[in-house]
Amino acid sequence: VIDGIHLHARLAALARVGAIDGGGCARLALTDADKDGRDLVVGWMRAQGLAVTVDAIGNVFAVRAGREDGPPVMTGSHIDTVRTGGRFDGNYGVLAGLEVCRAFDAAGLVTRHPLCVAFFTNEEGARFQPDMMGSLVHAGGLSLQEAYAATDTSGLRLGDELERIGYRGRAAPGTIRPRAFVELHIEQGPVLEEAGRTIGAVTGVQGISWHEFVVSGTAAHAGTTPMRLRHDAGYVAAAAATYVRQLTHDMGGAQVGTVGVSELRPNLINVIANHARFTVDLRNTDEALLRQAEQRTFAAIDSVAQAEGAAVERRRLARFEPVVFDAAMVAHVERVARAHGHDPMRLPSGAGHDAQMMARLCPTAMIFVPSVTGLSHNVAEYTAPADLEAGAAVLLDVLLELAQA
Amino acid sequence: VIDGIHLHARLAALARVGAIDGGGCARLALTDADKDGRDLVVGWMRAQGLAVTVDAIGNVFAVRAGREDGPPVMTGSHIDTVRTGGRFDGNYGVLAGLEVCRAFDAAGLVTRHPLCVAFFTNEEGARFQPDMMGSLVHAGGLSLQEAYAATDTSGLRLGDELERIGYRGRAAPGTIRPRAFVELHIEQGPVLEEAGRTIGAVTGVQGISWHEFVVSGTAAHAGTTPMRLRHDAGYVAAAAATYVRQLTHDMGGAQVGTVGVSELRPNLINVIANHARFTVDLRNTDEALLRQAEQRTFAAIDSVAQAEGAAVERRRLARFEPVVFDAAMVAHVERVARAHGHDPMRLPSGAGHDAQMMARLCPTAMIFVPSVTGLSHNVAEYTAPADLEAGAAVLLDVLLELAQA
Ligand SMILES: NC(=O)NCCC(=O)O
Ligand SMILES: NC(=O)NCCC(=O)O
Repeated sequence: VIDGIHLHARLAALARVGAIDGGGCARLALTDADKDGRDLVVGWMRAQGLAVTVDAIGNVFAVRAGREDGPPVMTGSHIDTVRTGGRFDGNYGVLAGLEVCRAFDAAGLVTRHPLCVAFFTNEEGARFQPDMMGSLVHAGGLSLQEAYAATDTSGLRLGDELERIGYRGRAAPGTIRPRAFVELHIEQGPVLEEAGRTIGAVTGVQGISWHEFVVSGTAAHAGTTPMRLRHDAGYVAAAAATYVRQLTHDMGGAQVGTVGVSELRPNLINVIANHARFTVDLRNTDEALLRQAEQRTFAAIDSVAQAEGAAVERRRLARFEPVVFDAAMVAHVERVARAHGHDPMRLPSGAGHDAQMMARLCPTAMIFVPSVTGLSHNVAEYTAPADLEAGAAVLLDVLLELAQA
Repeated sequence: VIDGIHLHARLAALARVGAIDGGGCARLALTDADKDGRDLVVGWMRAQGLAVTVDAIGNVFAVRAGREDGPPVMTGSHIDTVRTGGRFDGNYGVLAGLEVCRAFDAAGLVTRHPLCVAFFTNEEGARFQPDMMGSLVHAGGLSLQEAYAATDTSGLRLGDELERIGYRGRAAPGTIRPRAFVELHIEQGPVLEEAGRTIGAVTGVQGISWHEFVVSGTAAHAGTTPMRLRHDAGYVAAAAATYVRQLTHDMGGAQVGTVGVSELRPNLINVIANHARFTVDLRNTDEALLRQAEQRTFAAIDSVAQAEGAAVERRRLARFEPVVFDAAMVAHVERVARAHGHDPMRLPSGAGHDAQMMARLCPTAMIFVPSVTGLSHNVAEYTAPADLEAGAAVLLDVLLELAQA
């Protein structure tokens, strides 16, 4: 059985690394704080007697031997956070995986297949794009060269930062091919809480479209320049953000859209901006609708820029189609949850997850536990201790059955 | 007569201080670059034998003695720039004033009244607000204490920065009260060029309203947070900027409006912003209309913030009513311009100027010369050499008559 006290203690210890006001964490991928978090978790892995491998993209795999060699059953998630991150996003799934190993150790249990607990590099995509990068490279969806070339907003290269913090490992990505992958994660949305359920059996992950837009207008005087002569890059950015909001209303349903990054230059009160950079995050569970949302957004931004006499450049930062998880795996999660006395709920994931990349390699599932008021990517992100323990207990039995099969 | 070659040479020399790509200048008020620019101009003043006084807000006055003591006729402008500034905005009026002194020297002329060439601290207001700060303090419209307490975005205090660059002078502000004030400046707008005129006789300055808004929303996940549950500070900022644009269309006429500053936090692609800061610059030649524009803007921002469930705080950074210049002074400028063979055009100023503060103390006028395509606060700001010389020549005779009266 899961040692809940130990799980909470480790979550608290990891949350102290990169802690920020309000109880949250800032451990952006490949920063010093990320290195410190990695060192802490790798230390725990080693102390538990697991065999640790670091691959060339910095993914970390901790293997508990089985009676047979061969592909392991894998679980895990990520430990990087956004700049205003909570303490459970990602971390929970990794540390719960380690608790499953501890529970097996305590029971003197050797499973048939090896069990592997992984954490993947740069899942959040907050510093380097695309998100889910480590698992994407592992699944062969992105080359090491492309991944290393990603830069943050200060121009630092991912490859250099990985080397700097000492996590450019020797193993070739993708070497460890699991038999099955299960990721335990907080929901990060309000659905389970609103439905009063403890366990979610995740059916898949919605499609994700990330684009960056750079608008070039003309710097000019805010007082002397008639409205008809303006080429205001800031106005184009503002109109894009209000358009995205309107689009989500018009499309309704599952369509969400966010402008999370927006920056002007020279960013002075009496100067019309000659430069704007902003991002658009669009998501939908339906690929055709997501494409429609993209096309409408691109067309709207092009047309407002043209009317303003400003140039706009678009760059794709990430694009993943919706993913549907293996039906047998989803049913397996449901069955175990019911055996634990829960009334599990099927739901798609609103957030991207490493599981969606692993689904390219093997049968994959996810287990969700509720997020209070659906809050995540916020320092106030919270899940009740009892729910964290319930999710870990379900994970244990889901993994046990897969590892003994 | 004006030594055009010398004027252009000094403009070019001053433009090398804080030079940026594209031929412009970045000499934000009280930076090291501003200090270097000040040192250069003060050196020229001393070399011309003028008596230099620096007051407690860093305004610099260079006096050329007259036959009689008593209040001088004053000319001047400013030498600070915005971050993407041109080489003529402000600098032209100061250096042209020094050329008038050189021309009088060359002619062996001692005027009846003293002549004073001034440059005022922080006219642009790009780093510290309000704008026209030095002349406002000189005119008694702002206390030294309030001015010193102004902070830039990194929290540096104006008083400390003034001390640091060595321009916190001993003279009490407002000591030198001029008989009359004349400011020569580039138009910074397209009106003279479009009308094909060389000299503008400025009738006044439009009203200026600067406000800063800080919006507090809730950081949340861009993928998992349903649209109906969002408190997106970035959306409020975007809606405010599109509202300001719409308002200028609806009000038409002289109403201009600009959102030049807009910043989000945490400014990450997959995080709904919990913080936005933006500025609104509204201007109108009609005080009642300007008040209406303010009220409509404030109400619109309050209502979009309320609908979003976000809090908004408003702070006034600058507020100046429209200024009408002395009718006799405007007519005097016109008369001299006609005597020089020009067909002068009456027009209001779209930009704020030190002259609008000096108008509180004495009869005041401004002379404008054309800006190519109306561009200013842009590195590509340009005025043809012949127009610069024509403006300086008109300034000479305008000042001469005032100084001999
Ligand atoms: N789970 C999670 O927050 N992933 C980050 C990528 C995203 O969905 O924005
Ligand atoms: N002349 C000028 O650019 N003044 C700066 C203040 C303003 O009008 O924005």
